[in-house]
Amino acid sequence: MLAVVNNGHVVDGNFSDKSSLLNGLHVVISSPNDQLQYGIDESYKLRVPSPENPAYAHLQANTVYGALHGLQTLSQLCHFNYKSRVIEVHMSPWTITDQPRFSYRGLLIDTSRHYLPLPVIKNVIDSMTYAKLNVLHWHIVDTQSFPLEIPSYPKLWNGAYSASERYTIADAAEIVSYAQERGINVMAELDVPGHALSWGVGYPALWPSSNCQQPLDVSNEFTFQVIDGILSDFSKIFKFKFVHLGGDEVNTSCWTDTSHISKWLKKHHMNESQAYQYFVLRAQNIALSHGYEIVNWEETFNNFGNKLSRKTVVHNWLGGGVAEQVVASGLRCIVSNQDKWYLDHLDTTWQEFYMNEPLTNIKNSKQQKLVIGGEVCMWGEHIDGSDIEQTIWPRAAAAAERLWTPYDKLAKDASEVTGRLAYFRCLLNQRGVAAAPLSGPGRVAPFEPGSCYMQ
Amino acid sequence: MLAVVNNGHVVDGNFSDKSSLLNGLHVVISSPNDQLQYGIDESYKLRVPSPENPAYAHLQANTVYGALHGLQTLSQLCHFNYKSRVIEVHMSPWTITDQPRFSYRGLLIDTSRHYLPLPVIKNVIDSMTYAKLNVLHWHIVDTQSFPLEIPSYPKLWNGAYSASERYTIADAAEIVSYAQERGINVMAELDVPGHALSWGVGYPALWPSSNCQQPLDVSNEFTFQVIDGILSDFSKIFKFKFVHLGGDEVNTSCWTDTSHISKWLKKHHMNESQAYQYFVLRAQNIALSHGYEIVNWEETFNNFGNKLSRKTVVHNWLGGGVAEQVVASGLRCIVSNQDKWYLDHLDTTWQEFYMNEPLTNIKNSKQQKLVIGGEVCMWGEHIDGSDIEQTIWPRAAAAAERLWTPYDKLAKDASEVTGRLAYFRCLLNQRGVAAAPLSGPGRVAPFEPGSCYMQ
Repeated sequence: MLAVVNNGHVVDGNFSDKSSLLNGLHVVISSPNDQLQYGIDESYKLRVPSPENPAYAHLQANTVYGALHGLQTLSQLCHFNYKSRVIEVHMSPWTITDQPRFSYRGLLIDTSRHYLPLPVIKNVIDSMTYAKLNVLHWHIVDTQSFPLEIPSYPKLWNGAYSASERYTIADAAEIVSYAQERGINVMAELDVPGHALSWGVGYPALWPSSNCQQPLDVSNEFTFQVIDGILSDFSKIFKFKFVHLGGDEVNTSCWTDTSHISKWLKKHHMNESQAYQYFVLRAQNIALSHGYEIVNWEETFNNFGNKLSRKTVVHNWLGGGVAEQVVASGLRCIVSNQDKWYLDHLDTTWQEFYMNEPLTNIKNSKQQKLVIGGEVCMWGEHIDGSDIEQTIWPRAAAAAERLWTPYDKLAKDASEVTGRLAYFRCLLNQRGVAAAPLSGPGRVAPFEPGSCYMQ
Repeated sequence: MLAVVNNGHVVDGNFSDKSSLLNGLHVVISSPNDQLQYGIDESYKLRVPSPENPAYAHLQANTVYGALHGLQTLSQLCHFNYKSRVIEVHMSPWTITDQPRFSYRGLLIDTSRHYLPLPVIKNVIDSMTYAKLNVLHWHIVDTQSFPLEIPSYPKLWNGAYSASERYTIADAAEIVSYAQERGINVMAELDVPGHALSWGVGYPALWPSSNCQQPLDVSNEFTFQVIDGILSDFSKIFKFKFVHLGGDEVNTSCWTDTSHISKWLKKHHMNESQAYQYFVLRAQNIALSHGYEIVNWEETFNNFGNKLSRKTVVHNWLGGGVAEQVVASGLRCIVSNQDKWYLDHLDTTWQEFYMNEPLTNIKNSKQQKLVIGGEVCMWGEHIDGSDIEQTIWPRAAAAAERLWTPYDKLAKDASEVTGRLAYFRCLLNQRGVAAAPLSGPGRVAPFEPGSCYMQ
């Protein structure tokens, strides 16, 4: 944190007024348990200066991850004084008691549509901490490419775009470790049975046929052996409570059009949509056997919600009005409705990101608790290392506030937020994060010369 | 360099074949002088492995800066082996003897149209080293804002966009130092007498009048006192042999339209264009008195070339055909013709950047030597921390090769370069540099999912 605060300017002033000098920061953490997991205590209390010991600031938290959030807040209270050339905290004394509204505050990245090198992912992780997001939803593979090493099935990553656009298992572990040190969980997604064409490059038996290549072949036991192998390898690296099994946008034509599969369907008395259900539930069981709880995209709920494992979290994406049905049925929900929280939709404004309330139409307090949080999605069709940061920021920050801040402290009108978000955008730039201007669509270049705060 | 090579992947393999293991790199530097300056020896010779000692690679150079270039080359010979999980150099043995064609290989950044925080500038400096560019032309101030602290005239930076969009003198020294450690010179530009409206925010006496605010008031001795103060302060920080004094796009209407100035012109028997000449030459003399040689934009040459100090380097920007006239007159030249080497012109393709030959129509070898090099220009009207990297790269790399590589080794047809530039663009991404895809105009987003190498 010290490096982050200092690197905007050279701090070479003299501390002339010793009475206002902070000698340091006392950090008190109650729990020695530094395991990062869903639902841990992320609260903190920050006092600048400490009333008991004014030469120090005081930060207390139950976990080290709460303390990290407190340090982040402190770093954003720090300003460089151009006269004295020292770092200052303005408007002290401060007593800040803070904790997140939702436990799951996510950002999705997509490394299948374009490979994202490790330094790019690490920069994104760093930027997430500035807005206190805490889950990196890693959509690792999809139709277009399979970039991750799977030791159980080593030909799977033949589906990578090229030999060099791949992640070893050690690279994946590095990402998890880098994120964990910063209080960010990594949730791996293995999207099945659709969005999986790339699996067959290494193992063509997974394709219904050589010219009908997804969804994964539901009639083949090998398909489920591979899923089991992948999830077994995942379980050694991805320690987050949840694994995401996808299940979206499943076009079953290649099942019904391929003769060995249509025969299998007949034999098992399934139509295509029952086969879809069968596939999803079987994949769920495999994940459960590896100790995971499951997240699935909402089509699974929309089609056979009452059949899903009760440990399923439904990931809403198609639009509004779904979360309320999910929680009414007793399942948990993550909100990512695409009309408001898809970052690849460049025409969605930061105001729309801000005003998207996950608990819309959910009044019952038990049901409200079933919304574990929300997530903004940075789909990768037009995203690579050249433009990922300015497409994510600053709009993700608007959503991040919606997910962290107590409901009654949120702005009722987005216009109240403009100044603060402009300030935060410039803070991101000052930290080397390529956050785009506020004005205009996502990822727009600055329209004209001017102050950062007016862009 | 080690960090740069390692950070794309976790290197955790076993070195099974010890006969091909490099234990290290011997670096031999002839000169103990580590002063960075225009014209130093940047050559190096790299051998992998060393014929005398095959357990080591061998790098020799006359200066530490030549050695830095050799290390950069070595880093780009290194590849991660996905099987063995170690770093390899392919196709060895290598003997590389290398030196730049031109001594001045520049990139202009503009911190007046938009403030660029220090981390952004440092990231740009790092990226320059990957393409062996060696001069950062810092266009510090202009019409819109004056962000730099000038101790001699402390109100000048009142012309900054805001209190926080400023550089202290220590910040400027930090940039110079950061760049120097990486073999990059920093050339400061103080553009006079035009492009200087922002100076008058702190010192309104510099404006011709309160409603006619540029060029700087030629009739006022104070104007030249301020220039002298600025250049004196510069000389303590900017140690590059040259200072750039601008002199472009001077609209003298505010001189002739303002009565005290038009009187002054009459008194001194000058018309407006003689006053322009007077101003430029007087500023040149001030710079010379502080030990600098001078760079001026080409209008100064086009208007009164034979009056310029012989220590002037003319900076060509308006178009082709000028460099040959400059060197024919015996002056040195930097080439930045805007039709090919302006990075803010998004429609200029990388092929055009590559094929822009500084010595076009210059056949005489003495005159060829007067072209000290060239520079690509990243003007800031639509550029800030959110989009600077992908507007600079990869097109700047095409120009960088033009400036480094011996003429007979350059590609005669840009299509020969595509694969190499695509590879370099992906290398930049792997190092966390937001280099844009090759296809399409500058700064375009990837059109579709696909391999980095095909974008």
